[in-house]
Amino acid sequence: MIVDDPETLAEVTAQFVAYEQALVTNDVPALDGFFRNARETIRYGVRENLYGYAEIQAFRAARPGQGLERALERTSITTYGQDLATCSTMFRREGSTRVGRQMQTWVRFPEGWRIVAAHVSLMET
Amino acid sequence: MIVDDPETLAEVTAQFVAYEQALVTNDVPALDGFFRNARETIRYGVRENLYGYAEIQAFRAARPGQGLERALERTSITTYGQDLATCSTMFRREGSTRVGRQMQTWVRFPEGWRIVAAHVSLMET
Repeated sequence: MIVDDPETLAEVTAQFVAYEQALVTNDVPALDGFFRNARETIRYGVRENLYGYAEIQAFRAARPGQGLERALERTSITTYGQDLATCSTMFRREGSTRVGRQMQTWVRFPEGWRIVAAHVSLMET
Repeated sequence: MIVDDPETLAEVTAQFVAYEQALVTNDVPALDGFFRNARETIRYGVRENLYGYAEIQAFRAARPGQGLERALERTSITTYGQDLATCSTMFRREGSTRVGRQMQTWVRFPEGWRIVAAHVSLMET
């Protein structure tokens, strides 16, 4: 299994950057499109545990669109083979002293790269 | 891509169960063995951000071995193809009112199934 195949890494990095742009601008249709539309998709957020695409979609639709700007730190993207990647990053928001962490698992499907699992949290101080 | 191929799912489920047993008994050599020995392996924990196998190993060696018992809730294991799985679970520890979340990405390598990324957090109340 090839780790960090350059072409695969470039593809996933582009997806990661596009996701971040959609997140900070609260582009809900774009955000929905990044997640695999399936009951198996899971997102653990700072204050919610979402099982299945429908719960994730409902969370996005209800989320206030302000104050989502953030600065990323120590972003690490790794690909395993040609169809799997993990994206991990720490982040900070203005006005908060706590560090956030976001981890995503991306899989390539016939329809494109999709997030199948994500976990966002604020580290305990 | 086959999701939840029964044989692959059975293999990963056995790994997940073995990992949980190693965790609650603080079997450090076993825990180390579940993680891929590579600089790309990442573990975000409740109070730590560990980049690379060496940092994960150092954390395990220093961790107190008591009070690790926990009850799992809503465990969800999904396999994608034959070489990739995500394992997500919520957990509770006696004496704590907060719910924990653990998410792992497992990849099959020639040496066996290994965790390449993990994120553990306590949900904000």
